Amino acid sequence: MADEIRLGDYLLERLVQLKLRSCLGVPGDFNMSFLDLIEDHPKLQWVGNANELNAAYAADGYARIKGTIAAVVTTFGVGELSALNGIAGAFSERLPVVHIVGVPSTSAQGQHALLHHTLGDGRFEAFTAMSKQISAAMVELGNLRPEEAPREIDRVLSICVKEARPVYISIPTDRTHTKVPSAKLSTPLDLSPISNEAKEEEHVLNEIVSRVKGSKDPVILVDACCIRHGVVNETYELVEKSGLPVFSSPMGKTAINEEHKQYGGIYVGDITAPDIKERFNAADCVISIGALLSDFNSGNFSYKLPSNSIHLHSNRVQIGYAHYPSVGMKALLPKISAALAADHKGRLDYTLKTVSNPTNRLPTQEEEGEAAKNDPDVISQAYLWPRLGQFFRSKDQIIVETGTSSFGMLQARLPAGSIFVSQVLWGSIGWSVGAAMGVALAAQEEKLGRTCLFVGDGSLQLTAQEIGTMIRQGLTPILFILSNDGYEIEREIHGPQRSYNNVSTWNHSLLLDAFSAPNSSRRNVYNEAKESTPPSHQHDIQPSKKAYHAVHTKSELDALLKNEEFNKAETIQLVEIFMKRDDTPVLLRKQAEATSKANNPDA
Amino acid sequence: MADEIRLGDYLLERLVQLKLRSCLGVPGDFNMSFLDLIEDHPKLQWVGNANELNAAYAADGYARIKGTIAAVVTTFGVGELSALNGIAGAFSERLPVVHIVGVPSTSAQGQHALLHHTLGDGRFEAFTAMSKQISAAMVELGNLRPEEAPREIDRVLSICVKEARPVYISIPTDRTHTKVPSAKLSTPLDLSPISNEAKEEEHVLNEIVSRVKGSKDPVILVDACCIRHGVVNETYELVEKSGLPVFSSPMGKTAINEEHKQYGGIYVGDITAPDIKERFNAADCVISIGALLSDFNSGNFSYKLPSNSIHLHSNRVQIGYAHYPSVGMKALLPKISAALAADHKGRLDYTLKTVSNPTNRLPTQEEEGEAAKNDPDVISQAYLWPRLGQFFRSKDQIIVETGTSSFGMLQARLPAGSIFVSQVLWGSIGWSVGAAMGVALAAQEEKLGRTCLFVGDGSLQLTAQEIGTMIRQGLTPILFILSNDGYEIEREIHGPQRSYNNVSTWNHSLLLDAFSAPNSSRRNVYNEAKESTPPSHQHDIQPSKKAYHAVHTKSELDALLKNEEFNKAETIQLVEIFMKRDDTPVLLRKQAEATSKANNPDA
Repeated sequence: MADEIRLGDYLLERLVQLKLRSCLGVPGDFNMSFLDLIEDHPKLQWVGNANELNAAYAADGYARIKGTIAAVVTTFGVGELSALNGIAGAFSERLPVVHIVGVPSTSAQGQHALLHHTLGDGRFEAFTAMSKQISAAMVELGNLRPEEAPREIDRVLSICVKEARPVYISIPTDRTHTKVPSAKLSTPLDLSPISNEAKEEEHVLNEIVSRVKGSKDPVILVDACCIRHGVVNETYELVEKSGLPVFSSPMGKTAINEEHKQYGGIYVGDITAPDIKERFNAADCVISIGALLSDFNSGNFSYKLPSNSIHLHSNRVQIGYAHYPSVGMKALLPKISAALAADHKGRLDYTLKTVSNPTNRLPTQEEEGEAAKNDPDVISQAYLWPRLGQFFRSKDQIIVETGTSSFGMLQARLPAGSIFVSQVLWGSIGWSVGAAMGVALAAQEEKLGRTCLFVGDGSLQLTAQEIGTMIRQGLTPILFILSNDGYEIEREIHGPQRSYNNVSTWNHSLLLDAFSAPNSSRRNVYNEAKESTPPSHQHDIQPSKKAYHAVHTKSELDALLKNEEFNKAETIQLVEIFMKRDDTPVLLRKQAEATSKANNPDA
Repeated sequence: MADEIRLGDYLLERLVQLKLRSCLGVPGDFNMSFLDLIEDHPKLQWVGNANELNAAYAADGYARIKGTIAAVVTTFGVGELSALNGIAGAFSERLPVVHIVGVPSTSAQGQHALLHHTLGDGRFEAFTAMSKQISAAMVELGNLRPEEAPREIDRVLSICVKEARPVYISIPTDRTHTKVPSAKLSTPLDLSPISNEAKEEEHVLNEIVSRVKGSKDPVILVDACCIRHGVVNETYELVEKSGLPVFSSPMGKTAINEEHKQYGGIYVGDITAPDIKERFNAADCVISIGALLSDFNSGNFSYKLPSNSIHLHSNRVQIGYAHYPSVGMKALLPKISAALAADHKGRLDYTLKTVSNPTNRLPTQEEEGEAAKNDPDVISQAYLWPRLGQFFRSKDQIIVETGTSSFGMLQARLPAGSIFVSQVLWGSIGWSVGAAMGVALAAQEEKLGRTCLFVGDGSLQLTAQEIGTMIRQGLTPILFILSNDGYEIEREIHGPQRSYNNVSTWNHSLLLDAFSAPNSSRRNVYNEAKESTPPSHQHDIQPSKKAYHAVHTKSELDALLKNEEFNKAETIQLVEIFMKRDDTPVLLRKQAEATSKANNPDA
């Protein structure tokens, strides 16, 4: 390795060391000198998105699947601001997204020039001030001497990974090629979690073990930060060695294999399904791993855990009323597992006797209720989700939108090895379509199974153009569109008959064709020669096939889900599932009632 | 009028007084109680957009046409952040957009609850801190006592109009119906500009008049803030009474009727067309009205005005080297006009002798250059814009995108009474599609002519779904898509052969159909009864017709532009103009060279 390297390449080398293979974003004149370096890097591909918000959502999805960082590149002002909602989502939901912004040259900034993409008042710092609110760390490389840059890049990337939150890096156009020392690159970034002080950890361990051993019926509850802070394997070991029942929050879904014999289902406080709630509430001690108690993740704050429960977090532990603010779960979990292994047999027998493993049993017509009363072949919400549960396979990724699908899919038991992806806390409508693009991209890199998106006809409209990027990249997700005429989650919360909850009616059967290259007769003959780009130019991949499926009835749905070609998912497919307006998953109805009340406490 | 009124209605009444008729935005659970009030208001309609960025762009376009405020309503966090880039554009370009954000109830905020749409760390103030950077004023109505709210609403709305910049207003879910005093509503908002101190104004007037009278060849130059600060009529009077030649910057285009006999064309510093530049540079005194000297508006800062020029602004004047920081142009302009009227005849004779009124002369094949060398029927950039100039009529609105069209349209002479709409300073790609939706809406309200959008195939992709909103609202713009395979403006600045400047290839012939309701066979039969909504529900308007036109040659373009049905523009129409990649308007090529150099000053 040379003694010096271009600043932009230093950053890219670090990203590659962190397993990044694709950079997302949108070009702009202030970032193109950096995009040159990405396009020329042998281990990276540039994947341009349709817009910056979609790019940020895609980065969020990519990070969720890769279990490492994602990167999104935007341009000064106009580009970076469009991405903010997606970056804020990554902050809220704890995903390590590196936001790299190409900014004007140091000389233009120094002169406070009235450049395009500025506010016209010389405040070049306004945009970083905005990103500061949603970044775990920032560095403006234009403010540093070249020799300082590697250390600062290392600092922010380490924070990004350790805190599982976005960081912001700006590079002026005239600095991407500046030479900086490369020596640090030979030492990997230090990403180890906080190490616990031995005596304090021993005390905490003893407290935990004695509480668990002293409890008649302890259970494990897995939540979002188990996934975000990388203790999924440690948690699995705890489940196996302890023999205890394990439950999951909505945000923790699939962190523990839902086919596991000790798995008892999804716990969401008061709105938990009755049989699951009964079993969970019998526990006299809960070992909570990585809890993130947002309203939608906790049945609107209705958790009632036993007072001697144990709360494990990445950087702190709470046991009953006692707080241990500097003990992290990563190092602690294996020790708890080892200590509980001795009791394994008895605990496991009890678990298997008392826990009902969830199934994908289809509802009776009576259980389907109102929706199916006049037409037993109508696709009700009660029917759809368990039926889909039967369809999925190991390694499938299941992305659900904030709304009907994120609540509905909680009713499905997902297969071992599948990955559930949802945005329960931030809950930005339209997120799932952008995220699905990033998930499919990461799944392609990691050789996973099918990417299945579930989005309503309302939310789809916010970000629909990202389907064009999926097609261009040759990705083959299955896009399930729930056609029920508008924003159903909003209708459940407020204004069910209000016209503001309607959306434009689209012809979904044309979307894949509209977002693909037309037949040759429609093509731009002027530029045909230029379109035959070399294979390294991933931008011009055009898959030859795509399929639209309209599904109006249970029998049509069933036939499609059993169809062999469909199951192979070798081309991009759009499945439009026609459903009734005002039908809704039972969990969503309960949550919506609580939310409506919280919005109007005096009503 | 009652003594008390609901807080939300107070705000709406003020907006209606300012001539607002349509509220733009996207519903969310924290703003729906406010949307109820909009939907129930007899003088307002709610127009839901496909997403919040598009809504903010639409508000920008609406404000440009109405010459008054626009309003965009979003929801806390997820919604408001998606709008920021559009709001920042309104700040930069000086448009009075009121951003109204529905936020959680005061009690939820007080408890710092871990709600959906929060960052998960209790920082409810993070989003207002972000908006603060791009707002001329803000008010969080949840922080006020009810009796304080009217005064604060009045304060921020006045600033919005006077400064022609966005303001931010947040309303908690539990406060929209809170009763507040209504007395203030009977007094209109005080929107008068600063009044000049009499003696100082007299001195400035005398200085100006003596400079102009003492000059051999004074000219008038009209720029953006002439439009934004409402002195178009005063400027017209100055032109008429003085008899002087008048030029316009790109951002001032159409503020002065381009068919006016004293009009000399567009001035953009060094990159001005040679004959126009020669005439402009002959001037020995320039009366500059509302200048906004951004890079793209000034030929990359290449203005060379005579040293005794006069610079008039909304709140200050500069004459030569002397600054008058508290004299505004609104009151001053009529006095200048009156004082110069005596010299009218001599000045006008000279003007008419020396100024060549621009025309829409089509280029010779030689002037078309490279693009048309092998195929004289190819639609070159040199040909397209003057040909379009012949097509437009009075009251047409011509919206151009940052890129090929914003530079190209400067080559067209637009007819008297037409309105040119561009975003030269902020320059956010994709803006024009959202803006066109707002422009068409305002044009419908104001009974103007045809809405004509010009956007490239690259920029279109960022915001394309807003076409669905246009269709749902029954708007009938003509959407001209320039198909030239990607981001041409970026290619001109950097990386002409780089794959990052390619975009996904779409089938534009299907877009209008994809964003419209399908034929009945495709419709959602489950919800048909609910779709027959009463006429007051504007959401369900579905126009019966739409048209796609592919144009590959000059003769095809010519035939279409002469077609009677096409000209009527009674249905939404999409015109795909196939053009050569790497062909570009001459002004764009020159600007791109300058920008490329600024980005890499050492190269």
